[in-house]
Amino acid sequence: MDLLTLLPFEELSLGLSNLRMFPFFDVAHYVVSVMALREQPGHVVQLTGSMDVAQRSPFACWFSSMLYCFGGAILSGLMMAEPPVAPLSNGTNILLASLVWYLVFYCPQDALYSCAAFLPVRLVLTGMKEVTRTWKVLGGVLQAQKKYKDGLLVMVAVGWAKGAGGGLMSNFEQLVRGIWKPETNELLKMSYPTKITLIGAVLFALQQNHYLPLQKHHLMLIYTVFIVVNKTRMMLTGSNSSPFAPVESAMYHTLFARPSKDSSLTCGTKATTKPTASAASAIDGKADGNSRNGSTAGGLECSCNGLNGSTHEPSAHEESSADQAEPKDTSNKKTD
Amino acid sequence: MDLLTLLPFEELSLGLSNLRMFPFFDVAHYVVSVMALREQPGHVVQLTGSMDVAQRSPFACWFSSMLYCFGGAILSGLMMAEPPVAPLSNGTNILLASLVWYLVFYCPQDALYSCAAFLPVRLVLTGMKEVTRTWKVLGGVLQAQKKYKDGLLVMVAVGWAKGAGGGLMSNFEQLVRGIWKPETNELLKMSYPTKITLIGAVLFALQQNHYLPLQKHHLMLIYTVFIVVNKTRMMLTGSNSSPFAPVESAMYHTLFARPSKDSSLTCGTKATTKPTASAASAIDGKADGNSRNGSTAGGLECSCNGLNGSTHEPSAHEESSADQAEPKDTSNKKTD
Amino acid sequence: MDLLTLLPFEELSLGLSNLRMFPFFDVAHYVVSVMALREQPGHVVQLTGSMDVAQRSPFACWFSSMLYCFGGAILSGLMMAEPPVAPLSNGTNILLASLVWYLVFYCPQDALYSCAAFLPVRLVLTGMKEVTRTWKVLGGVLQAQKKYKDGLLVMVAVGWAKGAGGGLMSNFEQLVRGIWKPETNELLKMSYPTKITLIGAVLFALQQNHYLPLQKHHLMLIYTVFIVVNKTRMMLTGSNSSPFAPVESAMYHTLFARPSKDSSLTCGTKATTKPTASAASAIDGKADGNSRNGSTAGGLECSCNGLNGSTHEPSAHEESSADQAEPKDTSNKKTD
Repeated sequence: MDLLTLLPFEELSLGLSNLRMFPFFDVAHYVVSVMALREQPGHVVQLTGSMDVAQRSPFACWFSSMLYCFGGAILSGLMMAEPPVAPLSNGTNILLASLVWYLVFYCPQDALYSCAAFLPVRLVLTGMKEVTRTWKVLGGVLQAQKKYKDGLLVMVAVGWAKGAGGGLMSNFEQLVRGIWKPETNELLKMSYPTKITLIGAVLFALQQNHYLPLQKHHLMLIYTVFIVVNKTRMMLTGSNSSPFAPVESAMYHTLFARPSKDSSLTCGTKATTKPTASAASAIDGKADGNSRNGSTAGGLECSCNGLNGSTHEPSAHEESSADQAEPKDTSNKKTD
Repeated sequence: MDLLTLLPFEELSLGLSNLRMFPFFDVAHYVVSVMALREQPGHVVQLTGSMDVAQRSPFACWFSSMLYCFGGAILSGLMMAEPPVAPLSNGTNILLASLVWYLVFYCPQDALYSCAAFLPVRLVLTGMKEVTRTWKVLGGVLQAQKKYKDGLLVMVAVGWAKGAGGGLMSNFEQLVRGIWKPETNELLKMSYPTKITLIGAVLFALQQNHYLPLQKHHLMLIYTVFIVVNKTRMMLTGSNSSPFAPVESAMYHTLFARPSKDSSLTCGTKATTKPTASAASAIDGKADGNSRNGSTAGGLECSCNGLNGSTHEPSAHEESSADQAEPKDTSNKKTD
Repeated sequence: MDLLTLLPFEELSLGLSNLRMFPFFDVAHYVVSVMALREQPGHVVQLTGSMDVAQRSPFACWFSSMLYCFGGAILSGLMMAEPPVAPLSNGTNILLASLVWYLVFYCPQDALYSCAAFLPVRLVLTGMKEVTRTWKVLGGVLQAQKKYKDGLLVMVAVGWAKGAGGGLMSNFEQLVRGIWKPETNELLKMSYPTKITLIGAVLFALQQNHYLPLQKHHLMLIYTVFIVVNKTRMMLTGSNSSPFAPVESAMYHTLFARPSKDSSLTCGTKATTKPTASAASAIDGKADGNSRNGSTAGGLECSCNGLNGSTHEPSAHEESSADQAEPKDTSNKKTD
């Protein structure tokens, strides 16, 4: 491409690959993550919102924040049978993250939060956080490669966990705050950050196994630019539309959609109530439902809004909170 | 025994011990496991049945299927502090299991499922799956023996986990599908497969520690024949009656039954409602309840149907679904 | 101090550090732990009290008891990526604990429980259990120090887990018994034993890293004497008042309390119901609430009783059950 030859592509990619995440990018990641935690809603009566937890039990609030900030390292450690307490051994990072936590939740006049919530500042911080995503995914892939030299799937899994761990563990992070929402999780309804991290993990795993004709630092630059540009676009337009929606929709209809005459199987052979008509309409609705809602969070999923809106809400929540927090508490919101 | 001398016992047992599970027995295990997952009921309104999850989120459905197929290896890995992602490194097995998953859930005209659900075919597949159980239990016992040479209990635990892992993890496998039923689990109410696997783990652990005067391949043959014959009998007669019910009942009454004058202790010292009469009747009912329901799934348990049917339903569910899935979702069915 | 010079301090501390926990102190720990499990309340209708579980499923009851007795070793093993089944390899301890479990739940005439519940006996047993706490915390700190020589936070975390593991895992231990109470956990609302163990872990970690000018056996004696004396005082006076309440209150108000004009943030930015007046009153109530309830279990927390009593009950439950069990099932009790 002319653009690539005009830009110093090689130098940019090498420069990016040599960039150090500590301290500025790491701090941006902590700020955006803790702000996302803070913006988690809760139940007024039960006072389970993050701010309530911050007042009721600062310790639980701190623990939750650490799960947001270091969730990927913890989850990938668990998967590789390495001590999940390893992030605690990096005292400087823990101190920084704890300081960020304290200032976001307890700063006098709420100074840090107000300042960071200002859109231009938030854009920059979110962009920097997206840069750290590349490092985390790649770090996970390399971590798996040490033990499983040809284990492509293991590399994908660990890279994905390291990059999106906080989101994948969302059910258990919420449990720390006294919230339990088993009806949804990041596998049933994948948020945009989880999807983009999975794609990154697949790309880096293929590249490390020489299936992609790209050098590592080139792929790092391309991936980083893509996720930063896309995230910025989504924040500026306030749009939830995932860039993968058309591809997902096509894959879904090709591989996974079933014709309506199988409706009797839709609700399981042991369904005890409700006629198949509603099930059939749910299935029929999928062809529409998926294109209508195709852009919302959901890993190759059908929306079935007609029958059960509550578990298929689009992540309107995504607009105002940072990525890791996006779809976790949408099950009580209907914004179709 | 004359029968043993007539049959080429030594040759049979050696032949069995040298049998390779891959690919046919492994494929049979995958088919039966994924079919059991498919037959899991759910809630119509919430669309949590497996077929619903298969339509809503193929990824979650695939993940669930992998937990069914490789749950034992994952759980035993967690217990031995070995990477739980290790099964993912065996690409061929994962590909096979994924292919089986795809065909069971999405095959045009539902060909594979219809074919495999045909009773003679199902019998053969289930018999082959039972053969893999022996390999898995023994594998777990040997895995533990490497680290804990004299750790009899560790060998039992790991052998049990490896052979029945999918069932033992059922609460968390259901969580992947958005279902959460904390009121029951495989420890509170052991299904037949879990019990038979525990017995196998105990036998193989005793044999490996030279407490049983049997050679390994002899025990493998005896155990395999027993579980295959018993499972076939249960499927052909449509009976849930566990062969251990009389032994369990006797052990329970000898060791664990308490006289009714202790009824005030039955519901805990902090019980806030309900008179002890109902508790006493629950205890009195146990002597009857246990023999009446002795044949149903339940590890040395009392049925207490009079007071709380919902958590003590017999596993009528067992009849139609393969072993690993049997008692997991019975808490919403009353089939006494 | 004159007292220290009068008492043979050095000899006492050396004597204590050489004391062997096996068998008497370990047995005391098992007895007190299993008694605490037995005194767990449950729901009459669902028969989830421990005595009910003991009748319904002795196996689940035994498993729960083992989690109470060895929970610390299991949790610290998980954190350090060491096999969590390691406690099972110590056959003698498992046999002893199982014997204690059997006698506490199934002894004819309930002999052991009645005898151990007698206050003087209970005092002695609880005191001996407190002595084992020191060994467990120190053991955890040393375990972490082997892998993370300068990892102060890791040492604190692992020491804390090893000393208070049963309590920290309470949600999952309850799950074994078919109980699930996500609205509370030991991080949201720390019980006295969990707090005292955390303090011990911090002290021993600081001492091992030479931040405290104390020798190990001196600290062991001081800490042990403090926890035994305090626990005895609490049991004799029937008081829940934590000795740390004034310090906690002061720290809370200095570091974490927020002025009422931030009330709009109290319930999260996505709160959908209820005016901020009640939130404001909750915040205003905190200054009172905390001193009023400052002595109850709660790690630096606010009580907010006015708005949501159910998640902020003081651990009246603490009076009658041993430490590990104290605040776990208080969410259905209001004893303000």
